[in-house]
This record gives sequence, structure tokens and C-alpha cells, in this order.
Amino acid sequence: MLSETKNITWSDFQALSPEEKKPYFSENGQLFHCLHSQQFDREFIDHIYKLTNIIRSISKSKKGSLFLQGLMPHYKAMLYFMQPSTRTYLSFRTACQILGIQTSDVRDASISSEVKGETFEDTIRTFSSYFNFIIMRHPKEGYAEQAAYCLNNSERPIPILNAGSGKDQHPTQAILDIYTLRRSFEHYGGLEGKTILLAGDLLRGRTVRSLSKLITFFPGTKLILSSPEKFKMAEDVISFLDEKQMDYEVSNEFIKHLPEADAIYMTRVQDEHDTGSDKSEKSFPEFSLRAEHLSILKEHCAIMHPLPRREELDSAIDNDPRAKYWRQERNGMWARAALMTHITGYDKKIMSYWSDICKQANHTADI
Amino acid sequence: MLSETKNITWSDFQALSPEEKKPYFSENGQLFHCLHSQQFDREFIDHIYKLTNIIRSISKSKKGSLFLQGLMPHYKAMLYFMQPSTRTYLSFRTACQILGIQTSDVRDASISSEVKGETFEDTIRTFSSYFNFIIMRHPKEGYAEQAAYCLNNSERPIPILNAGSGKDQHPTQAILDIYTLRRSFEHYGGLEGKTILLAGDLLRGRTVRSLSKLITFFPGTKLILSSPEKFKMAEDVISFLDEKQMDYEVSNEFIKHLPEADAIYMTRVQDEHDTGSDKSEKSFPEFSLRAEHLSILKEHCAIMHPLPRREELDSAIDNDPRAKYWRQERNGMWARAALMTHITGYDKKIMSYWSDICKQANHTADI
Amino acid sequence: MLSETKNITWSDFQALSPEEKKPYFSENGQLFHCLHSQQFDREFIDHIYKLTNIIRSISKSKKGSLFLQGLMPHYKAMLYFMQPSTRTYLSFRTACQILGIQTSDVRDASISSEVKGETFEDTIRTFSSYFNFIIMRHPKEGYAEQAAYCLNNSERPIPILNAGSGKDQHPTQAILDIYTLRRSFEHYGGLEGKTILLAGDLLRGRTVRSLSKLITFFPGTKLILSSPEKFKMAEDVISFLDEKQMDYEVSNEFIKHLPEADAIYMTRVQDEHDTGSDKSEKSFPEFSLRAEHLSILKEHCAIMHPLPRREELDSAIDNDPRAKYWRQERNGMWARAALMTHITGYDKKIMSYWSDICKQANHTADI
Repeated sequence: MLSETKNITWSDFQALSPEEKKPYFSENGQLFHCLHSQQFDREFIDHIYKLTNIIRSISKSKKGSLFLQGLMPHYKAMLYFMQPSTRTYLSFRTACQILGIQTSDVRDASISSEVKGETFEDTIRTFSSYFNFIIMRHPKEGYAEQAAYCLNNSERPIPILNAGSGKDQHPTQAILDIYTLRRSFEHYGGLEGKTILLAGDLLRGRTVRSLSKLITFFPGTKLILSSPEKFKMAEDVISFLDEKQMDYEVSNEFIKHLPEADAIYMTRVQDEHDTGSDKSEKSFPEFSLRAEHLSILKEHCAIMHPLPRREELDSAIDNDPRAKYWRQERNGMWARAALMTHITGYDKKIMSYWSDICKQANHTADI
Repeated sequence: MLSETKNITWSDFQALSPEEKKPYFSENGQLFHCLHSQQFDREFIDHIYKLTNIIRSISKSKKGSLFLQGLMPHYKAMLYFMQPSTRTYLSFRTACQILGIQTSDVRDASISSEVKGETFEDTIRTFSSYFNFIIMRHPKEGYAEQAAYCLNNSERPIPILNAGSGKDQHPTQAILDIYTLRRSFEHYGGLEGKTILLAGDLLRGRTVRSLSKLITFFPGTKLILSSPEKFKMAEDVISFLDEKQMDYEVSNEFIKHLPEADAIYMTRVQDEHDTGSDKSEKSFPEFSLRAEHLSILKEHCAIMHPLPRREELDSAIDNDPRAKYWRQERNGMWARAALMTHITGYDKKIMSYWSDICKQANHTADI
Repeated sequence: MLSETKNITWSDFQALSPEEKKPYFSENGQLFHCLHSQQFDREFIDHIYKLTNIIRSISKSKKGSLFLQGLMPHYKAMLYFMQPSTRTYLSFRTACQILGIQTSDVRDASISSEVKGETFEDTIRTFSSYFNFIIMRHPKEGYAEQAAYCLNNSERPIPILNAGSGKDQHPTQAILDIYTLRRSFEHYGGLEGKTILLAGDLLRGRTVRSLSKLITFFPGTKLILSSPEKFKMAEDVISFLDEKQMDYEVSNEFIKHLPEADAIYMTRVQDEHDTGSDKSEKSFPEFSLRAEHLSILKEHCAIMHPLPRREELDSAIDNDPRAKYWRQERNGMWARAALMTHITGYDKKIMSYWSDICKQANHTADI
């Protein structure tokens, strides 16, 4: 219950574990704010998977596109991006356009009232005066939570969608990554039982951190956590995997694992989190996937990357059918659209439209 | 008549009083450009009040929202904001979205042709080639007028809506302030006869300057003009109040007036108008409204603020039912939507739609 | 055929002549990417002329506007403008709005993933994940071509519309210039046989370079190429005119040619292409059109300018009926809308709608 927030101070709230915070981000047992990947369970992931597939299918016709655009034209979303972003920003924006949601941006603090000394809380409340959603990326950890806390205490709580905050949380990326993995194995027996190689900067890559946790919902999967020593997966994730009795392997080698991987998830060195003299090396050539490796990969191996990439992923791979990263990128748009319809309850209308179409076409609604 | 502008030079035009300029901003006895609060009369204020209420009511249903969005989808508006703004910008933009008006922005001179040496007049004429409205904020006083003068002399005059120019004029803020005041007293006998306490930087706060003048349309209201000595209300407004035989009191005290106020309008020190070494003090603690004052306020006192605020308005007040500033902010969106439909004549369609709804519902159209 | 691009390397492709590149920018004999004015032939120009006129006419009614907005609401366009632009940007954006196309912008590299080291090709492929068009302006010559080459080799080729790249190409400006010329002579026997005076910086003005070439499709026209010695028309254009056996005159005088001109196309010194110490003079007063010249111009002379202007075109001329530059500017919006419907095949729906209207109105569809 959002309104429970009135009974807890901000500092007490901050001290809660992600698990304990969950109820404050839900309403009537349903996701309201989307802030952490810890809010997701298998049922949610399954629902979003199905919904994303249906939205993609519906949008293939002009008629279907118009149905989708007719769902939420009376909704307005604020894209509040206080950090550079191309993919997350554009995919959220185009997801809104698919659903008919009107958008506005604040991407530059110098043209807003923050230059007049406005507090973060007042900025967020102001957005809530005009919009039905706030989609926000912020360099400061915990700001998305603070926005949710502030709105829960106001007369107009509206959903906060966390589009990346600080080093840790980027929950919609986790959703699209899981979606892409599952979609890649749709005709190959599903994600269960597959071996996933995560490679690169596992310490600071928020996508691989979230993915490692969500993968525990899929019994029988195995993780290979392959990174340079200085960027190995942090202890909290390792403990989580242990607790869930996951099969995993920590490794500082890369190439030797390629033949056994059903999916390879590459990441780049997250050096934007480095500051000043603490600049790390920009790349680790031994953790690069190159065209010459293609011959040793499995025939149906799914190659993924959250993008942008640098030299850790050879662009000569792009046209190989196993390269899924461009689709992964595009999936971000569909999955974010699915999430927004779920939060507002419009997913029900989509399900019912799809079921009608399937009845007419006399084919199965099981997508 | 706009076309009369052809017979007067820019320098002669500039020398006219606001009263004398009014006819140049009207067409067929109807507001065309919205530049000064001096253009408004009681009839106009009453009409916008009613219209704003109706638009709010209609928009509550999806069906109503779609009706509103179907009104002006063939209109395009330019949001030309050469100064930082959050509220005015976002409320105009979302007002456009409510009416289906398509928008574009120019908020950064460095990405437009002004960097190639284009004059202000050419920039404005260019906007008139593509848009049906120009909504503009400019740091230079008189620029909105100059834009209107320039377009009146062109083949494609389109309305200029002044969203704040220089230190003086911000007419749509005045509209939403009056709206919020009246709305706050809707069930308490109306604005007439009420005591309004204006507090803070009355010298440079353009909102309190405009409000003081518009309040003269409401017989029996009393103004208390409470400010530090160095920021007291300017002589021109005082003379205007005298001329209208208004009941007012100039005071450099604040707290002692709180118990008698039906509405309290707080403002912040407008130090963005200070330059260089001339920086004033940033705040005057004795002109701050704090949570501990709530107990001495009237039960139905309306607390307002144009926002953004600093320490002159304690955020601990936010959840008190008498705090109206977040609603005031949101009213800006509805009131600006009302203004745009009025200027274009689409208010008639709204009135007729509303009257149909009321007939069907068998309730009164008197809102 | 776009797919032929797979068989040619980028460096071999770059070495091709514009003529040889044409097939790579077409699909099924139809324009796909719009990159060079060399892609246009008389048939194309005639079609766009007719289509532009029809779109203008249809849009005059609200019903017609709604028909146009209903054409492509399921399309999304990326406006990727890496150089300052007002007119080209706004006219493309409003053209999209006329057709119901949803837009997004990238106008500032500092808020996109380029700051994280993303390559140009990856940026373009990313846009192709979310959009149906890329409308791009880039300071680097050949970047629009490189974008097209890159997408032709991808799984999701989408049209690139070149909105100005480097010093040379700005094909949609050429389309609107030819449109405006023809429209100006609609009631005066058409463009054929007319004398066109091009004046100013002919060396670096990409609009006059393109226009000189397209004018060769209109038999009997004569060009007067009037410029300061240091900015005279480059040899490649002169050779092209010779090859096409055009009637033209190269002159370093201006005023003496005014009485014979049916159209005067003024340009400003393109000093944004100058760098550092190499700054040229900013203006050449003897190549300026001033109000005092109006008396020696032909009665139906069309005065044009691509804008923005400086002192080479006296603003006192603006209200003369022969001044066509504001219309020219507005024509950019209609002509770009026409181009986008042509590339996507939606021009057929427009033609058929128009033909129905004409049947109903019992007037001729010949516009």
C-alpha cells in the first residue's frame, strides 16, 4: 500500500531491505512504482514475456498499431533523464508513442527551475501535477526511491519508472534481457537448463548483476561469471546465488568457456563510474568476442550485449544470425511498452483484444 | 484590429500605454495576442474561470479527454523559451497535449539559426511559417510585444502568448492565480469581500503585481501588502489601487496579519533579476510561512505560492488541506488550455459539448 | 536494390560517382534514401510538385488535416541534427506532424551514448531499432551516405533523409526551391524560358549549386550566376551546365542584371564553413538587394532566399508582393511532407483521396 509510506520516516525507509520496501511500491497487490529488479517474481516475468510478444504481434498491422495508440492517449509521461542515454531514453519514448502516451522531456537541469534553487522533491511533485508517469534516470543512487517516497506522501502519487539510478539499479534493462534470452530459446526448449556466460565488467555492470538474480527463477540454468580479477562479480550477488543453490562458476578466463555457452552476454568496462585519477583501463582484450570465435560457438548460441559497445564486441559479428543484440535493443521498446500497460491495468484490454483476434483467426492465443 | 498596426511605427507603438495598445492585440473584439494582464476585464476572467472548470470536468473521463484532443489536432504550437522554466513550460506543453495541439520547442539559441546571425523578427516570422501559435518566454522586456507587432505587419499574423517577459508581465500566471483564488472560495462565498495577504518580494514579483491589479475587479476584497522595506510594492501599483478606491494596507510586518487573512500569497526573493555585485539577500526569514503558524490561520485560509519556493514556504505545510499551491500549479495547465481555446474560438465547441452532457445528465450547466 | 550494397565495400562505394550510387538508394525503381539532388529527375520533380500542391489543398480543412494525420500515425521519425538548424529542422518536424508521424530528436551529442564512445554506425543502427525514418543533418560530408550504406547492410534498412551534410548536399532544399520557383510562375507561363539570377556566395551555397543542376530539367531557362570573384560558382557546376547546353552567364556584377530577371535567388556568405584565421568578409554590399531596387524589377519577379539572411536582403522588401521567401520557407514544410509520403508509398492514398474530392466537387484533379 502506497499510503503506508505516511507512517515511516525517510531515514527509516532507507534502512529497509529491498524485500521490505516492496509493499510500499505496490497497490492492491500490483506493481505501481518500478524501482528494483527485486520487485519481480517469476509470475511477473512470465506475464511481461507474454504481453511483450502480444504487443509486438498486434503492432505489425496498421489496424493493430491504431488499437495500441488508442489505449492511453489521455496519459502523459515525463522523461526525466539527468544522465546521458540513447537507448533507454529512445525506447521508453517510442514505447510511449506506441501506446499513444504523450511525452515531455527534462534532460538539461540548466533550463529548468532547479537553477532557481528548487529541491528535488519539489521538482518531482511538480511533474506529478502534469503527468501520469515519471520515467527517470539519475546519477545519484536512491533518487528514484526518494521520488517514490515523496509522491507516496503527496495527494497525487503517480508511478515512478526507474530508468537507471546510480551504479546499481536498472530494472527495465533486466526485463528486456530476460525477455531476449527467453525469446532466443523459444524454439530450443526454453531458458531452463541453459548455460549463460556473463563476461566483462561484472562488478559494475548493473545489467549483469540484475540478470544474475533473475536467472534464478529458471531452474537448471548455469551461470559462468567470466571477468578480469578486478571486475569480478560482487559478493552480494554470489551470496544470493549460493542461497538460491544456483549452479555457477567464477572464472577469469573467457575463450575457453565459449564452446559450452548457450548464451553469451558481453559487457563493456563501465568507466563512466570512475572518477579523476582512478580511471581504470578502458578495455580488456582477452574478454572480447571476435569474428574468429564464431566457429567455436554453439549453432544456436545467443550473443547479447546491453550496448553501447566498444571493442569487447567485434562489429564483424553483427550480421551473424546468432547476434541478438540489435533485437535485444529493439525488445527494450516492446518490453517497456508492456510494463507501462501492466502498471496501469491496460494490459487487460490488450489481452482481451488479442484473444478476440485469435478467436477470429481460429488460432491459439498461446503466444 | 491587428491590421491597424500597419499605420504606426514601432517607436510610436512602444510609446503607447498598455490601455492604448489593447486594440492592436485584439481582432473582432476578441483577444488575439495575450501579452499583458491589462488586457483582461471581469467578463474575460469570468469566462476563463467557467471554461477552465468545464475543461477539468470533461477531462475526467477518457471519452471527454478524447473529445478535447479532437478539438485542435490540426494546430501546431511553438514553445519558444529563452529563459529557464519548468512550470510555465510544462503546463503550456501539457495544455497543448490536452487539446491535441502538436508542439515543438526552441529552448536553446545555440542550436537555432540565431547563431547564424538571424534577427529576432526573422526568427518570429519563421515560426509563423510553421505554427499556429507562439508561446514565448524571453528575458528581454517588450520582446513579446515586438513579436506581436512584427506579425501584425506580416501576411501571417498568429497569436503570441506571453509566457513571461522581463521583470514585468506574466499574464497567464495572473489568470491561474485568480482562478485558484476563486476556486478556493467556491464554497465559501466567493472571492468578493475576502482579505488577501501578499507577502515577500512585492517589488519584483510579477505575479503579485498583476494579481493586485486583477483583484480590483472583485468588489470588497482587501489587500495586505506585506514585505521587507526594500521590496515593497512599487508606486505604480499603489496608484492604481488608489484610483480604483481599493481597500489595502502596506505593511512591513508579516506574522501579525496571518489571523485575518482568507488567502496568503507567498513569494520568493526574485534574485535572478539581480546582477553582479548587486546581489540582494536571498531570504527574509521573518517573511516565511512555517508549520508553527498553521494554528493561527483561518480554517479555510488558502495558502498559495507561484513556485518555485525556497525557505519562505515551509515544506512541512504541504500536506495541510489549506495548502493550495500544488493545485495552483496544476490549475496552470487547465487555465492555459482554456485560454488557448478562447483565443481560437474553440471554447464555443467546449461550451456546447458541456451543455449537451449536462442536458443528458439532467444536471445544471452552471459550473 | 538496397541489398546489392552487401557486395561492395565502403571504400569501393565511396569511389562511385553520384550517378553510379543511385541504384543503391532505390528499391523497386523507387526512391528509398534521399541523399543527393542527383537522384532526382524531371518525372520525380513533377510528381513532388503536384503532390505538394495537393497536400497543401487538402490541409486547408480540418477534415483534410485529419485525413493526412491518419495516414502514418504508426510511423516514427528520428530527427538527428548534429548542426544548428531552425528552418530545416522545424519544417521536417511539422511535416511529420501533418502526416501524423511521431518524432524524436537527437540534437545534442552530449546527452546521447556517443559520450560513452559509441561509433556513428552503432548510433545509426540504434535509431533503426526504434524508428521508420532517419532525418539527419551532419557537419561531416558523406555521413548521410555512410548511414545509408550501414543500414543497407543491416537487417532493418530504413530511409535516410539528408537534411544537409557538409558543404555540398541539401537535397530537400533543392526540392522546395524548385517548387517555389514553379509555383511563382504558375500563372505566368511556367518556369520554362525564364531568366533566373543567382546571387551571392555561389561557391559554397549548397542551395544554389543544387538548383543550378535541377534547373537544367526546364528547357529554355537562363541562369545568371552573379557573385564576387572569390565566391564564383565552382567548375564542376559550370561543366555540368555546359554539358547540358544550358544558357548561362557568369558575372561579377549584380544590379545591372536586376531588370532582366524573372526570379532573383539571393544567398548569404556561408561563413560558418570558414575556420579560424581564414574568416572571409561577412558581406558584400554590392551583392545586396535593397528596397530602392524594387522599382527596376519586373512586375512578376520572384524574390527568393533560402534564409537565414543578413544584410544581403533588405527587410524593407518583406511586404512587397514579389517577396516569395517567406512562402518559400513555408513550402519547405509541404514539400518535405510530400517527399515522405512518396518514399513510403502513401502518396498513392493521397492521390486517390484527392481524386475522390475532385469528383465530388466536380472540378478538375489537375492541380
